[in-house]
Amino acid sequence: MSKESKIFDSVNPDFRAKKGSPKSVEEYVEGIFSRNKSVLSQAITLIESSKEAHREISEEILEQCMAKTGNSVRIGISGVPGVGKSTFIDALGKKLISEGKKIAVLSVDPSSSRSKGSILGDKTRMHFLSTHPDAYIRPSPTAGALGGVTRKTRETLLLCEAAGYEMIFIETVGVGQSETAVYSMVDFFLVLMLAGAGDELQGIKRGILEMADLLAINKADGENVDTAKRAKQEYQNALSMFPNQPSGWKSVVKTCSSLDGSGLNQIWDEVMNYITYTQKNGHFENHRKKQAIDWMYENIYYRLKETFYQHPAVKKRVKAIENKVAEGSISSFKAASELIKLFGS
Amino acid sequence: MSKESKIFDSVNPDFRAKKGSPKSVEEYVEGIFSRNKSVLSQAITLIESSKEAHREISEEILEQCMAKTGNSVRIGISGVPGVGKSTFIDALGKKLISEGKKIAVLSVDPSSSRSKGSILGDKTRMHFLSTHPDAYIRPSPTAGALGGVTRKTRETLLLCEAAGYEMIFIETVGVGQSETAVYSMVDFFLVLMLAGAGDELQGIKRGILEMADLLAINKADGENVDTAKRAKQEYQNALSMFPNQPSGWKSVVKTCSSLDGSGLNQIWDEVMNYITYTQKNGHFENHRKKQAIDWMYENIYYRLKETFYQHPAVKKRVKAIENKVAEGSISSFKAASELIKLFGS
Repeated sequence: MSKESKIFDSVNPDFRAKKGSPKSVEEYVEGIFSRNKSVLSQAITLIESSKEAHREISEEILEQCMAKTGNSVRIGISGVPGVGKSTFIDALGKKLISEGKKIAVLSVDPSSSRSKGSILGDKTRMHFLSTHPDAYIRPSPTAGALGGVTRKTRETLLLCEAAGYEMIFIETVGVGQSETAVYSMVDFFLVLMLAGAGDELQGIKRGILEMADLLAINKADGENVDTAKRAKQEYQNALSMFPNQPSGWKSVVKTCSSLDGSGLNQIWDEVMNYITYTQKNGHFENHRKKQAIDWMYENIYYRLKETFYQHPAVKKRVKAIENKVAEGSISSFKAASELIKLFGS
Repeated sequence: MSKESKIFDSVNPDFRAKKGSPKSVEEYVEGIFSRNKSVLSQAITLIESSKEAHREISEEILEQCMAKTGNSVRIGISGVPGVGKSTFIDALGKKLISEGKKIAVLSVDPSSSRSKGSILGDKTRMHFLSTHPDAYIRPSPTAGALGGVTRKTRETLLLCEAAGYEMIFIETVGVGQSETAVYSMVDFFLVLMLAGAGDELQGIKRGILEMADLLAINKADGENVDTAKRAKQEYQNALSMFPNQPSGWKSVVKTCSSLDGSGLNQIWDEVMNYITYTQKNGHFENHRKKQAIDWMYENIYYRLKETFYQHPAVKKRVKAIENKVAEGSISSFKAASELIKLFGS
């Protein structure tokens, strides 16, 4: 069976019907290499699909893209809703594009129920990037049945690299489970905060500040400037009490404003300092290798889980058994054994 | 087949040969309920065994113990080697025993290669507890092939509760992977630190301080008192910049000395404040339920992993494929697929 017919056997009608849709792995790969945003988007949609046949094709596309991956700077950006992540990325992206860079922005938001139609939301919030030919924005995928919302973000990142995007931002909401996953796929992790009256801590996930390579106090403009500077000093003192990052890097705190653009240059300088520093001490390369290996094991884990929890007998009983564990009428271990037995049946 | 013969079919010769070893699930359970330390230790050894037949018996023992579990305060204690964890637990345990409590101490140390013979090490470092009838000390299990060093600690904790131990300390070295696992099985997480010249950060794992419900600056005695007080103030300021724990609890910082006993009462008061606070706001019970459910899913995960990585074809190829991923000649996703295929074969 040819690759082409394999695709036609498996894709859903909507997908196939799309005008100018690629018909083979080669067409996908060519489209990606020539930075055709429409083809890139379709390849990502294919990768996000959980159908078995799509997986095979996705893997072939990825495999052919591999040689062109690895050349971007991967940056995670986190912070609570309202902190101004999209506006920040838009402002920073504008600066980078003016320096000749190509930018991709992926967003991961497990709390969001937005579907592909919601791309409008992202585009509205990123005025500059959303219409610029050198920028590509991909909104959050909808969460799979097993909550693997960030799982395909890794593949998406690689496709964007193969398409020649040199700075890739992965945006995540700093309140849930996704930060650790994003942290595990980026080179640099930036957390945005707001200054003032303790409100900056509202809802932010404990643990996230320690992940930050850079903490940026955003909206440091107008009458906020002094408060932001004070907050910067306080966070600098606080972070100095904590150990260095595994990379050896000492987290820095900066203020910035997406409104008047102040601080953006300094923040980007720190990102570049970090890259230079970690390339020199070997962390950059070792860390990427380690991340790739971790991704392999996580993929295996995800697929084992998928097979397990979609087994009819397991699916049928898992919630009832979980309830028994919650009410203490059965031990966690016995419960696990019962489900394992159902799986084997 | 009777339970008794099942045991005799499966246990290893050393195990069976032990004088006065229980011969049935009932004998194990009776021994545990009557707080027979020798039987308790043998039950834990059985639980730590990875043999399939041992697992069945372990589960039966656990199941019969379940009704008597849940009544202890579970406390995680972490800190780098040399911070004085064992001495601290010994001093705190002495205080609690003088108040009529029964204490169990479990230790988890993935970096350690010590076997059961090493119990001597723990006993030497816990002078008081190691010889007291109301204390039980269980050293670190050796890591399994899959590194599940903390996996059986959860079951061990439950057996100790069934044996009537009311305060259970789980000691872990604050430099590795085990803190998160320990954190997920305790009510309260205490981190020990040393004051002075930035050395206190040497080797400590980033992220661990944010897990602390209480940070204790140890060895605050003699000429260290002032330095310790200063460090306390600095950590208090630093932690105030961070969000509250998921329980709503605001982490506290204390100084103490296991040498002269100062600060131990205050630390224990905080533990009790925490328990009262979280019992009142519902966190305590909800959190334990959530932990039990998480344990179920983790058990399933562990057993799926075990089956997968012990599959002969997977076992044979996994390292070679991992190497390919590290050198970038194959994608993480393709690598996962290849191993999944081997598993299916």
